[in-house]
Amino acid sequence: MTREQLFENILKKQSFLCVGLDTDIQKIPEFLFDEDDAMFRFNKAIIDATADLCVAYKPNLAFYEAFGVKGLIAFEKTIKYLKQNYPQHFIIADAKRGDIGNTSAMYARTFFEEYDVDSLTVAPYMGEDSVTPFLQYENKWVVLLALTSNKGSQDFQLTVSMNPEPERLFEKVLRVSQQWGTEENIMYVVGATQGRLFEDVRKVAPRHFLLVPGVGAQGGSLEEVCKYGMNEDCGLLVNSSRGIIYASNDDHFAEIAGNKARELQQQMDALLK
Amino acid sequence: MTREQLFENILKKQSFLCVGLDTDIQKIPEFLFDEDDAMFRFNKAIIDATADLCVAYKPNLAFYEAFGVKGLIAFEKTIKYLKQNYPQHFIIADAKRGDIGNTSAMYARTFFEEYDVDSLTVAPYMGEDSVTPFLQYENKWVVLLALTSNKGSQDFQLTVSMNPEPERLFEKVLRVSQQWGTEENIMYVVGATQGRLFEDVRKVAPRHFLLVPGVGAQGGSLEEVCKYGMNEDCGLLVNSSRGIIYASNDDHFAEIAGNKARELQQQMDALLK
Repeated sequence: MTREQLFENILKKQSFLCVGLDTDIQKIPEFLFDEDDAMFRFNKAIIDATADLCVAYKPNLAFYEAFGVKGLIAFEKTIKYLKQNYPQHFIIADAKRGDIGNTSAMYARTFFEEYDVDSLTVAPYMGEDSVTPFLQYENKWVVLLALTSNKGSQDFQLTVSMNPEPERLFEKVLRVSQQWGTEENIMYVVGATQGRLFEDVRKVAPRHFLLVPGVGAQGGSLEEVCKYGMNEDCGLLVNSSRGIIYASNDDHFAEIAGNKARELQQQMDALLK
Repeated sequence: MTREQLFENILKKQSFLCVGLDTDIQKIPEFLFDEDDAMFRFNKAIIDATADLCVAYKPNLAFYEAFGVKGLIAFEKTIKYLKQNYPQHFIIADAKRGDIGNTSAMYARTFFEEYDVDSLTVAPYMGEDSVTPFLQYENKWVVLLALTSNKGSQDFQLTVSMNPEPERLFEKVLRVSQQWGTEENIMYVVGATQGRLFEDVRKVAPRHFLLVPGVGAQGGSLEEVCKYGMNEDCGLLVNSSRGIIYASNDDHFAEIAGNKARELQQQMDALLK
């Protein structure tokens, strides 16, 4: 998907919501296990209930890997279901990969050729040759970790070096990685919990899309994210996982997930105006 | 496996070799595809031919994921085969994972409970809560990226901050992560291509084991690694993947892999003395 198509979808839906499919078999409704394929059927119900309200889906691979071969099959089926039924939705495989060049190339082939998702989250620690193999695919995206939503983001990402002015590591990642790709194929992960630091992100990366986790269960504020992080093309995909998909675990879980997604979409609609 | 057991195995074998099972279906001998299960049968042959000469195996998940469900099954079978037939060998799942706490906990459960490997490579960028879930398992190890073997290691890992003396990012990772675990459950990845920088690694982490990729195809020198990186308990696991497992791709591939492993083991034997 191109940047232009993504922005068009945001305008059409009046939403920049990404629904995180962190499908934990220990948390999904028990009755789904009456039949095979519980993970996929959970995802399908969530997708059908939220597709009108969001522009992106983000399955986190950890949850699928935890279920072994069955989990991987559920992941594959979910991607296929999305591509067949909701081809306008941007798919982010949240896998936080990154390895030496030939190995990253292998991951790129897996995610962009085999699964054919639109984008993959990538960790920047190993530098250029760990990231560039993912940038060789037309209309595919790297979503690079910059300033994450968790407490541990303070351990290394805020480390200050001189360039020649003081520069924090996340700022260096934002700056240096712009030599590897463009705003048409790189997005950055910036946690909703980072508040005013979005202003500093925007100084270095004014035009790039940001994938923003951490609204909801992790305590980030949608208003703050928009105040300090939105740009003229929106420039935000705000993710909610647990706050939507586990809002209920009874028979009505999908309907209630839809309601939660609608609440966020309505807030987004107001914030886009 | 404990640090003591690992050191005993090194002394017994006079080897600190780790064989990297980067099993690429595009590179393994064609005749293996005459039957099902080519990846696993390749691994089994390599393992049987090298087990006497090495103390560890390191399958890189990228190569298994690239083959989808079949690849994951081959990975599982390989781990089971190792645990049943060579229980003294240290198994490193090279997956370079790391995510927010609840997600890292999910990865930890997968690798340490389901697959029951001894250790997992982890990327440090997301900080403490992305790493500590892996440290909650007795006799299981985090192998944390510190100073990697690839060219991109220069992009961020050498970034200098003040603490109050100048400190490079890899040194900060080494220093800070020692507050999270001990030399009994953390190792560090330091690339064989880094030469004298091993001296600087040893200033911060004198006692920890280092997992050292980059000998062979990537051009690192075993002598240099030992000169600057070895400590009184050896403190090194030196990995070779492509240089061993793809030394030949005819009928004799396993025998020739064994010969290549023996060459390295003999060099290690001399260097241990």
